[in-house]
Amino acid sequence: MKHLENLIDRIIRHVNIYLRNFDFDSAMHLEEVIPLSRFTKFYGFYGVTAHHPIHFHFSHSNLAGSYFLGQCKVDNSILYKSDIRGDELKAKGDIMKYRGITIPIERDEIIRIEDSFLIKNLVHSYSHDPEKPETFLIKCSAAMHYANIHGSPMVGCFLGPLSTVDLTALRDSVVGAFSYIQTGELYKQNIGPGVIWVGNGNIFDFKYTFPESVLGKYISYTPGQQPSGIIMEFVEKKEPDFQEVYDVVHRKSDIPVPPGASVNRYSVIKGKCHISQNVLVAQRAYLEDAWMGKGANAQENCYISHSRLDGLNVTAHGAKIIHAKLSKKVFVGFNAFLRGTPASPLIIGEKCVIMPHTIIDLEESVSIPPETLVWGHIACQKDIATHSIGLKDLMQTNGEIRIGGMRFKGDGMSFVNLFQHRIEHILEANGAYFDGKKDNGHAQKGQNISFNIIQPYPMGPMKGLYPTIDINP
Amino acid sequence: MKHLENLIDRIIRHVNIYLRNFDFDSAMHLEEVIPLSRFTKFYGFYGVTAHHPIHFHFSHSNLAGSYFLGQCKVDNSILYKSDIRGDELKAKGDIMKYRGITIPIERDEIIRIEDSFLIKNLVHSYSHDPEKPETFLIKCSAAMHYANIHGSPMVGCFLGPLSTVDLTALRDSVVGAFSYIQTGELYKQNIGPGVIWVGNGNIFDFKYTFPESVLGKYISYTPGQQPSGIIMEFVEKKEPDFQEVYDVVHRKSDIPVPPGASVNRYSVIKGKCHISQNVLVAQRAYLEDAWMGKGANAQENCYISHSRLDGLNVTAHGAKIIHAKLSKKVFVGFNAFLRGTPASPLIIGEKCVIMPHTIIDLEESVSIPPETLVWGHIACQKDIATHSIGLKDLMQTNGEIRIGGMRFKGDGMSFVNLFQHRIEHILEANGAYFDGKKDNGHAQKGQNISFNIIQPYPMGPMKGLYPTIDINP
Repeated sequence: MKHLENLIDRIIRHVNIYLRNFDFDSAMHLEEVIPLSRFTKFYGFYGVTAHHPIHFHFSHSNLAGSYFLGQCKVDNSILYKSDIRGDELKAKGDIMKYRGITIPIERDEIIRIEDSFLIKNLVHSYSHDPEKPETFLIKCSAAMHYANIHGSPMVGCFLGPLSTVDLTALRDSVVGAFSYIQTGELYKQNIGPGVIWVGNGNIFDFKYTFPESVLGKYISYTPGQQPSGIIMEFVEKKEPDFQEVYDVVHRKSDIPVPPGASVNRYSVIKGKCHISQNVLVAQRAYLEDAWMGKGANAQENCYISHSRLDGLNVTAHGAKIIHAKLSKKVFVGFNAFLRGTPASPLIIGEKCVIMPHTIIDLEESVSIPPETLVWGHIACQKDIATHSIGLKDLMQTNGEIRIGGMRFKGDGMSFVNLFQHRIEHILEANGAYFDGKKDNGHAQKGQNISFNIIQPYPMGPMKGLYPTIDINP
Repeated sequence: MKHLENLIDRIIRHVNIYLRNFDFDSAMHLEEVIPLSRFTKFYGFYGVTAHHPIHFHFSHSNLAGSYFLGQCKVDNSILYKSDIRGDELKAKGDIMKYRGITIPIERDEIIRIEDSFLIKNLVHSYSHDPEKPETFLIKCSAAMHYANIHGSPMVGCFLGPLSTVDLTALRDSVVGAFSYIQTGELYKQNIGPGVIWVGNGNIFDFKYTFPESVLGKYISYTPGQQPSGIIMEFVEKKEPDFQEVYDVVHRKSDIPVPPGASVNRYSVIKGKCHISQNVLVAQRAYLEDAWMGKGANAQENCYISHSRLDGLNVTAHGAKIIHAKLSKKVFVGFNAFLRGTPASPLIIGEKCVIMPHTIIDLEESVSIPPETLVWGHIACQKDIATHSIGLKDLMQTNGEIRIGGMRFKGDGMSFVNLFQHRIEHILEANGAYFDGKKDNGHAQKGQNISFNIIQPYPMGPMKGLYPTIDINP
């Protein structure tokens, strides 16, 4: 596996050059993080559909366990068990709008991943860099376990485990474990762990940082070691259930799937689940005793167990919902960890917005009133007071407010509108409003995907590398 | 599936142009021979190994259920459930010898299939056309169920079901059902069904034609209908056993496989089988209660059931062996159908050569003495007299002999030498003589193949066509 080892060294050097000002050594994180034998153990796969342009190009890379859907070019990279979706890329002829500037899209956008090492990441949506609207570029970067790269092109960056970068163009930056960044741009910054930061220039700025004591319990990361803590343990315990999903070539849903809904064949459905119309269950989503109301979605790497979602619910990439009851249009953000117990369920009212990376882990039953924004760490009912605000109250805010460890500055109305528009966009894109004819989205388009399985060289010096693969219409 | 239908039309027109002198209409054979829905039902797959150069290129084609191993380029073609092997192609630097002429090979040979329609065919070995040694070309041709295209490049040809063309360059020719042609060249000829013809210019010429009454019972073919008869029924009855083989991605052998042997993951092993050292069981081989002695091989589409093969046995592509006991070094040629019964087994002595397309279907127990050449149709012991000759007797022949319906002209020694050299070559190439270090062949190289699964567009006008796929090292 000499060539594969050389490739890992090469990526480490590329990342280190960009992060030299921080004396950042990616070797500490990437060397031996995945045992070499695992790079040949899992197949990669790409989907062919009639719904978006097809172009895949893979060279000098390992793609073990990774999934590709939209146009994508991967060179000199290691994508380990990652989801590279690309079914929301911009199309030739589209118009991108950025702070009042109109940018015509001249060719179909493509995801390009170069000299990078992604571990169990989700790469999705489209590039939010207005300077390069036709290329979603991930270059000379490394991202650890379960990081979400959402609309966020980057050059020379490192993302810690369970971090999310969202709608942001990054350069030469480090984002710590379980941090969530949505700031439009990020340049030469070193963000510590557990930072939740949503900023929109001078318009608003939301910030919350998890106390070290809480964060360490849920996600603890020391370079050179596997990430640990409650969230990692939860995810790893479910891993064996995915094995049989990958063992077969074609797989039919075990439960009834009504018209307009889709259950990806790479998802896990356990126990007694119910799928209503226009529900989307994405690849590597995990449902157990889950009741999914009309237009609810379960996105990649999310877990919904022993829970009822009334409908039009968004469960974003990597979110976990356990022993909970969610009313209509509840939004649960990236990597949120919401865990009730059979005796103490979590009740969430209509149209609540659970911020990305929120941890609700209950010691007693907790009920969240409708139309509430929630963040941080909640264990009991009284924590709600210091970790939430009514959406209507926030909309009337202009200036600075502090609630518990949270600090908000700027225009609350814009902040709330941003989330609400986005939730509507997500529901539309996922096909929640499909009426049998129009407004179709991923739930409908995902019903008919041909999956193609790709494998690396099985032995010799090239062992673990994939041949050069080029797929065109 | 408009594009796929257009493609079928296109191929029909291309084949018809070349065969215009025979007023041959390939539409009679190819239209609706495979229901359209089946073109999307089965995946194609290609193997990646460390043992031979990798280059696959597929464009504007359907590859349902087909298997690719060596370098191969497919354009505007339909390859339905075919095996395109290509692991014996010539390599750059090789020397091809042809009747005393030395031809240096200037680049790695590649199989090219253009404007052709192959149904359950085997394409194997390397081009025996000395004029184009670096391209194994199959162009504007159609070949029906279970035809073998063995070292035989062709332009503008039609092969009937269960026919074989072997080590022969063909042009503008028709080969009837169950005919076997090995004549080096074939130009503008229309060969009827059931013709067994091995010719080597002026050196020798072997010919046997099955009586119509026998042929119709075993393989009957009317254009526009599915081929029928005992052999087709036998094969179709086994088809469901292959289903589970294709359903899983990775598959381990259920029986012990000793070092130096390989059992392809796309083979069927049923009942109580025994695999000795250096045994090769190829993809789509079928073993049931089969005892395979050291160095025996079971090639593509062959069936060995309730039989014992003592060792160094060659069971060529498409051969069937049922209730038989074969001593060492018995050679069973392409598509031979050898069927004893539990009460009346078939016994074949050492070093016998069962000619390709021989039908032995027993009413009583039959024993064939060692070192005998066998052809035609045998049902009982007395048939042996009119359908065989001792190899030693044949070697002493020079001139013309007739035995039953067989006519041999020329040098018997050359004919026997040709077969014996070929059998040795096959055993060597398949790794029968591997000693743990040297003389490795397919049995050893086949142990470690990565299989990649490819699928067509699932819907829309391109439904049933595969995207353009290009694979390089």
